[in-house]
Amino acid sequence: MTTLEARGFDPAHSLLLTDLYQLNMVDSYLRGGLTGTAVFEFFVRRLPPGRNFLLAAGLDQALAFLEDARLTDAEADWLRAGGRFPPALVDFLAGFRFTGDVDAMAEGTPFFPHEPILRVTAPLPQAQLVETRLVNLLQFQTLVASKAVRMVLAAPGRRLVDFGLRRAHGGEAGLLAARAAYLAGFAGTATVPAEPLFGVPVFGTMAHSFVLAHDSETAAFAAFARDHPDQTVFLIDTYDTERGAEAVVALAPRLRAAGIGVRGVRLDSGDLADHAVKVRTILDTGGLLQARIFASGGIDEHLLARLHAAAAPIDAYGVGTSLVTSEDAPALDCAYKLQAYAGRPRRKRSEGKATWPGAKQVYRFHGGDGSCTHDLVTTADDPPPPGGTPLLAPALRGGRRVPDLPDLAASRTHAAAVGRLPESLRRLDPAPPYGVDISPALCLLAHEADGAADRAGG
Amino acid sequence: MTTLEARGFDPAHSLLLTDLYQLNMVDSYLRGGLTGTAVFEFFVRRLPPGRNFLLAAGLDQALAFLEDARLTDAEADWLRAGGRFPPALVDFLAGFRFTGDVDAMAEGTPFFPHEPILRVTAPLPQAQLVETRLVNLLQFQTLVASKAVRMVLAAPGRRLVDFGLRRAHGGEAGLLAARAAYLAGFAGTATVPAEPLFGVPVFGTMAHSFVLAHDSETAAFAAFARDHPDQTVFLIDTYDTERGAEAVVALAPRLRAAGIGVRGVRLDSGDLADHAVKVRTILDTGGLLQARIFASGGIDEHLLARLHAAAAPIDAYGVGTSLVTSEDAPALDCAYKLQAYAGRPRRKRSEGKATWPGAKQVYRFHGGDGSCTHDLVTTADDPPPPGGTPLLAPALRGGRRVPDLPDLAASRTHAAAVGRLPESLRRLDPAPPYGVDISPALCLLAHEADGAADRAGG
Repeated sequence: MTTLEARGFDPAHSLLLTDLYQLNMVDSYLRGGLTGTAVFEFFVRRLPPGRNFLLAAGLDQALAFLEDARLTDAEADWLRAGGRFPPALVDFLAGFRFTGDVDAMAEGTPFFPHEPILRVTAPLPQAQLVETRLVNLLQFQTLVASKAVRMVLAAPGRRLVDFGLRRAHGGEAGLLAARAAYLAGFAGTATVPAEPLFGVPVFGTMAHSFVLAHDSETAAFAAFARDHPDQTVFLIDTYDTERGAEAVVALAPRLRAAGIGVRGVRLDSGDLADHAVKVRTILDTGGLLQARIFASGGIDEHLLARLHAAAAPIDAYGVGTSLVTSEDAPALDCAYKLQAYAGRPRRKRSEGKATWPGAKQVYRFHGGDGSCTHDLVTTADDPPPPGGTPLLAPALRGGRRVPDLPDLAASRTHAAAVGRLPESLRRLDPAPPYGVDISPALCLLAHEADGAADRAGG
Repeated sequence: MTTLEARGFDPAHSLLLTDLYQLNMVDSYLRGGLTGTAVFEFFVRRLPPGRNFLLAAGLDQALAFLEDARLTDAEADWLRAGGRFPPALVDFLAGFRFTGDVDAMAEGTPFFPHEPILRVTAPLPQAQLVETRLVNLLQFQTLVASKAVRMVLAAPGRRLVDFGLRRAHGGEAGLLAARAAYLAGFAGTATVPAEPLFGVPVFGTMAHSFVLAHDSETAAFAAFARDHPDQTVFLIDTYDTERGAEAVVALAPRLRAAGIGVRGVRLDSGDLADHAVKVRTILDTGGLLQARIFASGGIDEHLLARLHAAAAPIDAYGVGTSLVTSEDAPALDCAYKLQAYAGRPRRKRSEGKATWPGAKQVYRFHGGDGSCTHDLVTTADDPPPPGGTPLLAPALRGGRRVPDLPDLAASRTHAAAVGRLPESLRRLDPAPPYGVDISPALCLLAHEADGAADRAGG
């Protein structure tokens, strides 16, 4: 469509996928010799309404971006052509390689406001330039994983599958949502490339259009069973849910004669609990005791909790819009902030947005039964407190990944440790906040940073 | 990271960026000989709460997808390797070219529930396969354009700029949000690649980290002005907004001596109306009468309306999260439904999700002053009603674009015709619904479709 796109613009790895002000600031840093070491941290300022914790996600994509971000020739040509960007800046961008360090919480770690989940230590121009895309990658997967884990907790013993690609905000969102949901405990996704890209299992059978394209429901189900004898989950609500279930029962003997079993049916509209009870009876009465009931359509964690409380006979759920858009809270109040430059702690004091300065570490404390009791945020060089488990660990050193970072399967197992959070936090209702203490060392550093700023005339 | 990604997986043009069930259904269509002509339409079932209309957007990307979607060799290898997909299906996908027709509303057209904005007429397997990505592309840009136009209407005479990339749901969302906002009347974006990709103007100056990296605000402003004498918009809220404004006034004579003017200041926290009044006074008293005030931070259409009503002296706004996530309604209740197959109208009757069958056209009627009065939805082959303007027009024929489709600039001009909607609909408050009539011909067709379905046993 455009020169850049035709020449293979790849947003996922583009250094230019950033805000214009980053380029202006980097330009000034280079001219002014502000190339000392900067420490930036990514954290969330406050929990979305009604949420009790968040789940860290997106680190793998953030690291891949830092390792791979390059300016392409086409991008360099565009930057040079306009005359708007100084040649020295374009040269810097053309030669860009991220050479800094990253320390981060493992994906799947529950975390709380003002706890950094990622720290970048790098020359100021590098650390600044990568801000926008880092925030873009970390906030979205954290958002979706944090939503998904609520659904997982609300539907114990049930299989949850992401159906959200069509309502996701673009293609990358659909792919990354599938990954984040799986990380949080979903069984898989309908989004095909999530399997080759991330190893996420994919699921899917039929849509209403398939039923509508045939002359009858029965004809559609029979054709599908013939072609996919191992995937016989029939969508039964195109015309009337219970009549659809009866059609499946009536078809079953013919299928059985052909050696094909009925794996299940899917409900996608109406009162799911009511339909599920009626359909379960129809299936059981018809001898299809093994057939499972899948449900989809407008599902979120609150509906899952209600269906669970009502003991609705539903075995698995497809969840779309509410998951991939994090519908009740489609963004996190998060920031990537300069915490130290050239060895000096910094913090902004904008109203309602003050931050804790300096490089930080988060320690988590556990009770005798292994459950989490509270966290401590302190300076990165404060001596480790007895009994505290540090949550930030090296991820990149000199721009390259450290060995043995967990893969997605390991992160998914790690996320299951959400069961060690206090029980009140794992409920959907708002709970009293989890205790996050600020260490005396960090309070002292904040005073020092403010004093230095005041002496410098703000 | 993975084989597919390493081999250049490009979600934007991938045929595999779809739900697994599409592949299963296409497989069955091919085996069953269901390759007749299908008509699918994309429409919205109901408006998000509080909205009075939607703005069509995303057609250009939808058409580009249909024109360019291909299976890559790496994808074909993956499909073949697992043994899960039948060779005939993989061969079909490997040779896929979209050869169908598309009729659509021009981007920037206001529309209402149950009005199709895009119709696909193509062999059933083709029309089915493209569903997921078409919905993904159309719903997101329509969502953002519909949100953006509310902001444009709420802030007459003010310049609005998209600042949302970091909080967008992935990289593609950030890029497409920049495009959709511009289409709806925003002045531009901070997202750099939106200029080379779409021709959207980009804006940006400095962030808090720039101020924090210097020893004082004044030092930061002086350095920025030296390096970017034409972009002197200073961010003044890092420590204290009014003191920041005073620092700009104090610096101005030094800048003036160097031939540099102060273009403006930016506020990013606190009570924006209150700060703007105080800052305006400080700037005016300091002789900086020409300096403009920019505001950002937590802005949505309601805050814009309040600031406008209060006559806050703010000249331009940066809008992020609320725009790019459509925060109050991050998804549309939309669908891409089979409306006819092999010449016969179809419709599903699932509870709460019944649709109007058959290929449709939408006519808009205007009063003597040019303002819209009501719409009529009818069958595509119904004779045009006198005085009605048809809203769906050919976009693709035989898989290729028709000549002279509007470009983004033309679509942006077209979107400005939102001013012809009834005044009540252009307000932020919920208005009585706009009149959308269903023609007798369409009602008759729905009865016929239901009758045929009933005779076929549902």
